[in-house]
Amino acid sequence: MAEQITLTFPDGAKKQVDAGTNALAIAKDISNSLAKNAVAATLNGTAIDLTAPIKQDGKITIVTKKDDLGLAVLRNTGAFLLAAAVHQSFPSYHLGEGKAQADGFFYDTDNPANGENQIAVTDLPALEKEMNAAVKDDDKIERVMMAKDELAKHFADDPYKSALVKAQAGVQIPVYKLGDFIDFGYGPLLPDTKLLKHFSLLSVAGAYWQGKSSNPMLQRIYGTAFFSAEELEEDAKRRADIKERDHRTIGRELDLFFVDPEVGAGLAYWMPKGATIRRTIERYIIDKEIANGYQHVYTPILANLNLYKQSGHWDHYKDDMFPPMDMGDGEMLELRPMNCPSHIQIYKHHIRSYRELPIRIAELGMMHRYEKSGALSGLQRVREMTLNDGHTFVAPDQIQDEFKKILTLMMDVYADFDITNYSFRLSYRDPKNTAKYFDDDAMWNKSQAMLKGAMDDLGLDYYEAEGEAAFYGPKLDVQTKTALGNDETLSTIQLDFMMPEKFHLTYVGDDGEEHRPVMIHRGIVSTMERFIAYLTEIYKGAFPTWLSPIQAEIIPVNNEMHLDYANEIKKRLLKEGVRVEVDDRNEKMGYKIRESQTQKIPYTLVVGDEEVKDSSVSVRKYGHDKAESQDLEMFIDAIVADIKNYSRTGEADNSKVLNALDKQ
Amino acid sequence: MAEQITLTFPDGAKKQVDAGTNALAIAKDISNSLAKNAVAATLNGTAIDLTAPIKQDGKITIVTKKDDLGLAVLRNTGAFLLAAAVHQSFPSYHLGEGKAQADGFFYDTDNPANGENQIAVTDLPALEKEMNAAVKDDDKIERVMMAKDELAKHFADDPYKSALVKAQAGVQIPVYKLGDFIDFGYGPLLPDTKLLKHFSLLSVAGAYWQGKSSNPMLQRIYGTAFFSAEELEEDAKRRADIKERDHRTIGRELDLFFVDPEVGAGLAYWMPKGATIRRTIERYIIDKEIANGYQHVYTPILANLNLYKQSGHWDHYKDDMFPPMDMGDGEMLELRPMNCPSHIQIYKHHIRSYRELPIRIAELGMMHRYEKSGALSGLQRVREMTLNDGHTFVAPDQIQDEFKKILTLMMDVYADFDITNYSFRLSYRDPKNTAKYFDDDAMWNKSQAMLKGAMDDLGLDYYEAEGEAAFYGPKLDVQTKTALGNDETLSTIQLDFMMPEKFHLTYVGDDGEEHRPVMIHRGIVSTMERFIAYLTEIYKGAFPTWLSPIQAEIIPVNNEMHLDYANEIKKRLLKEGVRVEVDDRNEKMGYKIRESQTQKIPYTLVVGDEEVKDSSVSVRKYGHDKAESQDLEMFIDAIVADIKNYSRTGEADNSKVLNALDKQ
Repeated sequence: MAEQITLTFPDGAKKQVDAGTNALAIAKDISNSLAKNAVAATLNGTAIDLTAPIKQDGKITIVTKKDDLGLAVLRNTGAFLLAAAVHQSFPSYHLGEGKAQADGFFYDTDNPANGENQIAVTDLPALEKEMNAAVKDDDKIERVMMAKDELAKHFADDPYKSALVKAQAGVQIPVYKLGDFIDFGYGPLLPDTKLLKHFSLLSVAGAYWQGKSSNPMLQRIYGTAFFSAEELEEDAKRRADIKERDHRTIGRELDLFFVDPEVGAGLAYWMPKGATIRRTIERYIIDKEIANGYQHVYTPILANLNLYKQSGHWDHYKDDMFPPMDMGDGEMLELRPMNCPSHIQIYKHHIRSYRELPIRIAELGMMHRYEKSGALSGLQRVREMTLNDGHTFVAPDQIQDEFKKILTLMMDVYADFDITNYSFRLSYRDPKNTAKYFDDDAMWNKSQAMLKGAMDDLGLDYYEAEGEAAFYGPKLDVQTKTALGNDETLSTIQLDFMMPEKFHLTYVGDDGEEHRPVMIHRGIVSTMERFIAYLTEIYKGAFPTWLSPIQAEIIPVNNEMHLDYANEIKKRLLKEGVRVEVDDRNEKMGYKIRESQTQKIPYTLVVGDEEVKDSSVSVRKYGHDKAESQDLEMFIDAIVADIKNYSRTGEADNSKVLNALDKQ
Repeated sequence: MAEQITLTFPDGAKKQVDAGTNALAIAKDISNSLAKNAVAATLNGTAIDLTAPIKQDGKITIVTKKDDLGLAVLRNTGAFLLAAAVHQSFPSYHLGEGKAQADGFFYDTDNPANGENQIAVTDLPALEKEMNAAVKDDDKIERVMMAKDELAKHFADDPYKSALVKAQAGVQIPVYKLGDFIDFGYGPLLPDTKLLKHFSLLSVAGAYWQGKSSNPMLQRIYGTAFFSAEELEEDAKRRADIKERDHRTIGRELDLFFVDPEVGAGLAYWMPKGATIRRTIERYIIDKEIANGYQHVYTPILANLNLYKQSGHWDHYKDDMFPPMDMGDGEMLELRPMNCPSHIQIYKHHIRSYRELPIRIAELGMMHRYEKSGALSGLQRVREMTLNDGHTFVAPDQIQDEFKKILTLMMDVYADFDITNYSFRLSYRDPKNTAKYFDDDAMWNKSQAMLKGAMDDLGLDYYEAEGEAAFYGPKLDVQTKTALGNDETLSTIQLDFMMPEKFHLTYVGDDGEEHRPVMIHRGIVSTMERFIAYLTEIYKGAFPTWLSPIQAEIIPVNNEMHLDYANEIKKRLLKEGVRVEVDDRNEKMGYKIRESQTQKIPYTLVVGDEEVKDSSVSVRKYGHDKAESQDLEMFIDAIVADIKNYSRTGEADNSKVLNALDKQ
């Protein structure tokens, strides 16, 4: 009789089985349906293959299709099968690593003969076919133990696999076989391929070997897999939506911007249309801030490195900063990573009195941050950026009022951009570990209470995060979800007790003595780059009229007969400050209308005999199927009002907050 | 009998005199009045002292007070006397060099005991007194020959003078003595001090020993001298005017900007008021350019160094560029010294058709130029600057039309800024040396003829400068005189045949073939820094209403009684976009009015009982002595019109040009 071991199930039940029994047999023993849904198991918390012999006592769980881990096993198997297909189709290619990810799987490959000629998107259908053949035949995946030196011999010609073998612990390595294809280093895989019916290969992209930019670049193949056709279809739709909203795609289609790594990685070129959107936002936010008591300045993007030593940036933030430039006369100049030290120079340029406070300094401040080239992405992650930055200098007892003012300004701005989907997060210091924060208990307690009080006064919901504050002060984050579902911080209001100390900032109080102000860092619409990437995605490129690079496109039905009238309308609209174009190319009208829609121009105006006769326009609003005839004067009034009103749809409503403010 | 020599006078007359006779004796021999006005002589073109013995034949000229050289002799004597006074008052101080300059004289001094404690402006009256005492006593300046080693011994304790002695050629050195003070290394000096009655010491400033920034900094004392009290007085007035117009002085008084070498030499901080002027100009010029067919873009201020290698900047312009930054992954990034390569990227981003030409790319482009710290000055010479830059890409046969358009735009802009004092200068290649220019004879001949033709068509006067063109194309410069009388280039239109070659720029012609465009570099208002420095000086800080940081200042006669009305007016004006402030401080009304004038605010509005009753304002325009009562509504209309009309005085009139254009 074989040795017996005792297995404990999640519900506490125990069972004795022969040592060497595998999880699949145990599942079958419980029920056929469990065995059918089983994809792996865990023993004492470690994931194991269904077919791996169990040789010790322990807690066992059967992992099924419904578990998150089950999906990971499916996708690991997908990666394995992909590698097998690559090996079959491109036997000379090297293989790196591959595995399940949050939303699919990947495998890294390399053509050793010619690094320029890697597996391309066009190769994916053939690879899918290869994989599908295995699934259809229900090819078995065999798990066997193999001596490490034998495995090393097997992969002797593949430098990446050799390195992975070398990194394995133990002398016997569990490997997976599919026909004569061998691979290793996964968690558990499915014992057979039939469950991998619903997969899809998606894309390819370069990826550094083991993620290090100093390593060679491999070709990464991406795919995904689900247990049901419906889920795969759902996912495909989601990906299509993401692709459609991707600001890089839209940016290319609408000719808004481009980045050329040859000329500089992470450095955006704004084409005329993108620049128009940016300029409109810049003017808007500057005017808004000036109307709200901010003093806009221009400060240099370079400073003596000593300034960032004094501010602490050089000590704590050096890795994100550009290398300093030696000016040859003892001066080291540094591209600024943040604008705060610059605004402190403005504050310090005069002796300040309590009568002047709060002093609100704002700027569209260009900054440079060193991001790894692999982290760069469109306008989202760049190395040169322009921040809608502002710093308010207040007396400690003005914190609450100023915080409210900033918050109200923010919500007012959000409404103008039709941003409705955001939430608030207040970050306090950790009350159990106050020692690691700026040392002023009274200041912390008072200011945290002030922020909370302000939120309550305004009747706003918020989440309180203890221990999430920066060491120099509490803060408020405004969180939103991007169109692609990612969390993003729209704006921040950050109190800072530290920087005024470091720069010895003072104001003369009504007692004639010097006092230390508190500094509030705040951004409303973050950087122009990030904000416009975000807007592009939430608008899907259909910018509201006030932001749209071209606000109205006029299409004469016939260039010979209607061009004069079209130009007359153009002149009228230009006079009202509307960005308007006449499409007088020798193209068919239908083509021109379609192109106007593709370019997501808010108003397409078609003018023909009727319109000339009636002094009217045939207006097609973007996204509407039908055109509507409208009196020219009425149309002009309407588009001007639309622009002036920031094309507000009325959805973004912060009247509740504004009312609460009015009551004060 | 003494040896005889023959001297020839300017009129050809000859005279024999004893060898060793000096020029003063020769002058006396001609006439007493000549001797009285004589200050030096020249022998065979070399300036000599009146008292120097003449030992050889030669051409002689008597230099008098009326000659330029005479003034230089007077001022050299001033420098000498200043040095003697310093030696008298500060015997331990070292002396550097000193001499006459275009508008005065200087002497360099150094306190060896304490470099921080140098001769200050407050010391100048005492030094003047010392010098005046010598003049009053008519102390004689004796010219003697001294052995070089004796002279070296005399100055053994002074490192600067020692170096100067060492640099002297010959073993016998002519030195000048005043009492026991000895100095050397001048051209001729006056033999006595009585002519130096009309001098003045002006200022002090640091100056590197022999102008090299690696040398120690000495303290330079500036002074000036004339032969008559009237001239000295005239000069003092001129200096006062310069000082009054100096944009650095005005910038400080009106709180427009500052530069702090501690934080970064040549890097300007624009205070809110200066920033308002700059922002107003930026928006103005962008809107103007867009209305004139320019496409405004934003491009990065950094690029891969290779871009500037391709453009040729790195080869030809390296000394003016910042050091490249090594990004650690093989990329060298460079702060751009010019925007042209960036705009070329925009052009190259699409395939271009002849139908699109001219393509006009414009930007407020920030650039960085490495200027020596000694060359930096206020906003005039900086290291970080933002250029109103634009590049037009044209087919060769469009050069003339485009040139005209640019020129007309320029003159239109000048008129808006009330700039009337400018002239044109066309630069061609040297017809005698065509080999050193871009090699395309037909292109040169045709384009030069086009520029000239355009100027003639517009009926403009211009100066033609052969051989002054850049090697890559002809150009037009618009020259002006600054308020301080210096020549300055306001704008340039530069044709460029070279850059399109270097970057392989093309457009598809109507023949379906690729053609090479011509690039036109043009700046209208140059950099924001230079232009605002220039405007500050021509306006003497009294910016026209449309540019003024504060356009109207409202002063209630009594805060208790008239503040509400003042605030009501403010609200009305804000709504019309007027930059307005209410001065509600507890200060006397007269004080407030004076301050409003000091701040050169265009409209000062005083409101009291009468104004409240009549719905009027008492308006005092800047620079006018009297206030005038005006109906509030009429005043609002007037100030809004003033702003909208760019406060044009009507003086800047380019109607002649515009008419000429209309005729085409």
